[in-house]
Parts: sequence; structure tokens; C-alpha cells
Amino acid sequence: MTTSATGMPFDDILALIGQMSGPDEDARAKVRARDAVLTKPAGSLGRLEELAEWVAVWQRQAPPKIFRPLVAVFAGNHGVAAQGVSAYPPSVTQQMVENFAAGGAAVNQLCIAHDLGLKVFDLALDYPTGDITQEAAMDEVGCAKTIAFGMEAIAGGTDLLCIGEMGIANTTIASVIYAALFGGSAAEWCGRGTGVDDDGLTRKAEAVEAALALHAGNLDKPLEVLRRLGGREIAAMVGAILAARLQNIPVIVDGFVASSAAAVLYALDKSAIDHCLFAHVSAESAHKKALDAMGVRALFDMGMRLGEGSGAALAAGVVKAAVQVHEGMATFEQAAVDGPAG
Amino acid sequence: MTTSATGMPFDDILALIGQMSGPDEDARAKVRARDAVLTKPAGSLGRLEELAEWVAVWQRQAPPKIFRPLVAVFAGNHGVAAQGVSAYPPSVTQQMVENFAAGGAAVNQLCIAHDLGLKVFDLALDYPTGDITQEAAMDEVGCAKTIAFGMEAIAGGTDLLCIGEMGIANTTIASVIYAALFGGSAAEWCGRGTGVDDDGLTRKAEAVEAALALHAGNLDKPLEVLRRLGGREIAAMVGAILAARLQNIPVIVDGFVASSAAAVLYALDKSAIDHCLFAHVSAESAHKKALDAMGVRALFDMGMRLGEGSGAALAAGVVKAAVQVHEGMATFEQAAVDGPAG
Repeated sequence: MTTSATGMPFDDILALIGQMSGPDEDARAKVRARDAVLTKPAGSLGRLEELAEWVAVWQRQAPPKIFRPLVAVFAGNHGVAAQGVSAYPPSVTQQMVENFAAGGAAVNQLCIAHDLGLKVFDLALDYPTGDITQEAAMDEVGCAKTIAFGMEAIAGGTDLLCIGEMGIANTTIASVIYAALFGGSAAEWCGRGTGVDDDGLTRKAEAVEAALALHAGNLDKPLEVLRRLGGREIAAMVGAILAARLQNIPVIVDGFVASSAAAVLYALDKSAIDHCLFAHVSAESAHKKALDAMGVRALFDMGMRLGEGSGAALAAGVVKAAVQVHEGMATFEQAAVDGPAG
Repeated sequence: MTTSATGMPFDDILALIGQMSGPDEDARAKVRARDAVLTKPAGSLGRLEELAEWVAVWQRQAPPKIFRPLVAVFAGNHGVAAQGVSAYPPSVTQQMVENFAAGGAAVNQLCIAHDLGLKVFDLALDYPTGDITQEAAMDEVGCAKTIAFGMEAIAGGTDLLCIGEMGIANTTIASVIYAALFGGSAAEWCGRGTGVDDDGLTRKAEAVEAALALHAGNLDKPLEVLRRLGGREIAAMVGAILAARLQNIPVIVDGFVASSAAAVLYALDKSAIDHCLFAHVSAESAHKKALDAMGVRALFDMGMRLGEGSGAALAAGVVKAAVQVHEGMATFEQAAVDGPAG
């Protein structure tokens, strides 16, 4: 990514936000017209009908098509891990990236189950971001470059993008981002993540409080929140979600951490996440609060809190089914089925 | 089906209820032991972990396996349709059976999306059951034979059975069964089904009330409720759910109407539906009330109300994914991933 004419790297990102298109109302109308003549009572497939419409509207085509669904998992390490905020050591981030590569993680199996592509992007795991209780996580050039990296990540092509992440200590990062963007106390936004005990949860809330205090007065701009408090995987997910919008690719956002990337975009422009489906309500306690703050409704609640795109991959199976139903069903006329009486 | 030594056909059914086994605790322990060492924080896959355990416990094997998932759809016609309780004419039952055969219905597409087998069983569609506002739906021999037909329906083999139905006017039938088994007013159990208007809804509640009044005093035995008020597809689903239990096949029950077959079994013996997963909360208004009456929790709520096994087929995609995850993931040791710190 080159810097903009102003020399400020974030200006390029902001310019792209300004280039977003709204929903394709023509595609929506076509989907609804077809839906009305398929062999089922009107509206009887509920959320499945909404999902087919959602894919069409953001792919800007009707009927919607899903040929190359992709789960993109971004991995980062975090200086704040030194504050004892996670149940697992930071070494696990790299080890799990290797587990993804070897096919041994949950998301690998979900991709097999629902026939989804999987790409994993590790972001300088040997060089954790700055400890946000002591300093900014990233400088502006580094943050902007990581956003740009996330934008490039989907350049290989996809027509349905699932966004996930891996990074020991990154529920702490997500919590502090939500607190900075939406207000509220540190404790309200902190949950047990991978499973910290009571002491760990206290350390986590203290770290979030300390970071908010250190950066107070510099958190009025969403990209500055991302730079000071975020992680590289969050920045890359911001880029991927934005790039998908510009390339007419609907996005399924995974859980608590992935949603924090969407929250940065939402804070920049409420419409910037209109092409996003939020897969599930995470068991991480503050996720529901984050979804509510963005005014969005998740597809399901299965009590999941793994991350790595697992909830999004599961949701992709539902979305694929919804599109298959919309495209494959017969109409009343084709099937010679009588419509409603009288 | 031959009649029992007593000459009472229902006695054979009751005898089979007595032959049911409970959950396989050995399989449960094995699943939990494996789950504890897979590369994820304990419990982080939430409901997916419960689903893998559920399949294993009722297949009586660990790890669980799903090679031949089957959606069985039972279709019947109902004399009560003459009371104007549905938005669609009874001819639609047969037409939809033909649509299933031609691959044009929603359930066909869901089976394609999640790689499920589909079998459709039509039950004497040209001879609707008796109008329950005027007479019993079936005689005892006919009802028992239909239950037996449902038991045979899965004889071709499956390791995960999804139960669905088709039958114009059968939400009225389900409503009256629930009212007879669980109490409450006719209106509480009646919803709009395929989409009746206010007048239709009134006629529906009146039909349920009339049936309850006509058969009052003869509804203390669940199989008698089924015989007097039920439909053939309900009786066949009772048989299929029971046969699956006896053959170690977990069952996914679809929505409002399919759940009424489970309710008959539940009323016979609360443990008779322990091997059943309830796929979804239907948008048919009283389904949640029926699930609550049985003390069960549905997997998801997608606002669906189509029937024909559609919700169960969608849930089967989730269950297949859960089993894939459980079987395919690496352990911490295999993947050389560190466990929790300290």
C-alpha cells in the first residue's frame, strides 16, 4: 500500500470507505419475485429466505451463487499477553497455525463438512504488537499496511467470505476495542476467553482499564483505536471485510474477536458492515452486548467460543443451503402444485 | 404387523416401548475423554460437542459415525380438511409428493446441500382419515398398521434419521393432539399453518374444540389420542421414531407437526424421545409451547414453518459437522500444541 497524497496512511482507508456501494435493490427484487412462486407457503423458510436475499443483494446478482466459499483465518500475537490475560501461553498461536496447516483444527473439519476453502494468514507472530498497557500496539504505517495485507488476502477470489482469527490474548484486545468504541466499563466487556480463572479475569479487566487510561484522549477516531489498542489480526480483518465489500463479496463474521474488526468499520461508517452476516452469539459473555451495540442479530447461538472462524464456517453451511434452496426449488407452475385456495 | 396374543394391536406397540434401552454411558465417557484432549479450550465448541456426544450415545458407539443420513417424509390426508382449516386445498398433498419425487421441493435442495438421503412415504392419500370433528380418524387396526408401516420405513438402513411430513390440514391435527395430551385451550395450540387468514384460524380452533368435545372421555391413553385425533403420517412417524430407538439410530425431529408424533411417544413414556434432537423452533406459534411441554430445547430458531423435514435436514448439516469435528480434529499431543499455562 502506498500512502496517500497527504502522506497519512489512514486516509487511503477512509477514501475506500467512501467508495462503498449500497445494497443491490434490483437483485433483492428478483430474489423476492422468485421466492414468491417457489413451491412453499410464502415466508415459510424464514431466515433461509433472508439469507438467500442477503447473498444476492451483496453479490449484486440474482439468483445468488456460491461456488468458492472461503474461510480466511488471520493470526496475530499480542504484547498484552505478558499481563497474564490468557489461560494459554503465546506459543499456542504459532502452534495452532501449524495445526491449521496440518488439518487438525476444528475449522479444518468444519471446512470439510461444508466444502469450504480455508486460507490462514499469520502476521509476524514472532513480533507481537506493543503491550497496550504500556504503549500503542502499532504505528500508523504498520497498522495501515496490515489493513492493506488483509485486503489483499482475498485477492485469490471467493464469492462468500468467512472471517476468523487466532491469537492468544486477543479476547482482551477485542474487549478493549469495544470499550473504546462503545463505552462501558472494562469488566463489562471482559469474559473468560479460552478459560481464564477468576484471577486471570481480574488481570484481564485491569489490563483493559490500564490500556484505556493510557490512551485516553486519543481514542476518538476508530482507526486510531485500532492502531493503539488493536492487534494485527484485527487490522487484517478490517481490511478483508472492507475489500470484500468493494468486490461484491458477502462476509460472514465469526465470534467475539472477529466482530471487533467489524465494530471498527461500523464506528467509521454504520453502513460499512451492511454486507456482513454475524454467524453466532459467542459464549464469550460480552459478544451479545457487542452485537447489540452494532444493531445486528446473529444467525444462531450454539454456545461456541473457539474462534478460528469456526462459527462462521458452520454458518456458511446454512447459507450455502439457503442459496441451494432458492436456486434449486421448483415453482408452483413448474411442479403443477395448486396455490392457496380461494 | 400381526396382532398380539391379546388380540389388541396396540399391545404390540406398548411391548416395544418396554424394550427400549437407555443411553450408552460407555460411549458417552469415550466421547468426553476424546473431547478433553482435542486442540481447543475445553467446552469451546458448545452445542457441537453435545451433538457429537448425543449421536454416539444413541448409536451406542464412539466415535460416532454418519455414513447414511436419511430424511424420511411421511405424507397423509385428513378428513378435517373439509372444515376449511387450511389455506391450501387437499390436492396439494399429492402434488407435493410428486414434487418431492421430481426433486423440486425445499427438502430436496436441503438434502443436496447436506448430502442426505431422502425417502418419501405416502399413506393412502386418496383415502383421507375420518374427519375428527365427526368420528375417529382411524380404527385401532388401521392405526397400528400405520405405526408398523412407519417402523418398516427405515428398514433400508440409516445411521441418522430425520423425520418430516406433508399433509394439508395436519397442523390442525397436531394442535388437537397437543391439546389432548398436554391440556390447554384449542386456541392456544392453533397457529396459521400454511398461512390461514383470521377466519381460517377461527375455523381451525373451532374444529379442534369440536374434536376435543366429541372424543372427550376417550383421550386418556396416548395411542387412543393418536387413533382418534391423529393422521396417518403422525402414526407412521410414531413408528419410525420408535423403530429408530430400537435400532440405535438417533432421530432429528422436524417442526410443529413432526413433534406431535414425538409427543405421543413422550406421553407413553417420557424416556421414549431421549434419542431425539428437536431441530428447530418453528414459526408456527404453538411449537415452543409443545417443546416446553416435553422439556426439550431445539437446536436453532430460523423462523421456519414449512415442514417436509426441512428444519431437520438443515439441522442434520450441523450434526454432521459436529461429528466430523469430533472425529477429525487432532489432539494436543498429536499437534504438539501446548495446553493451558501453569
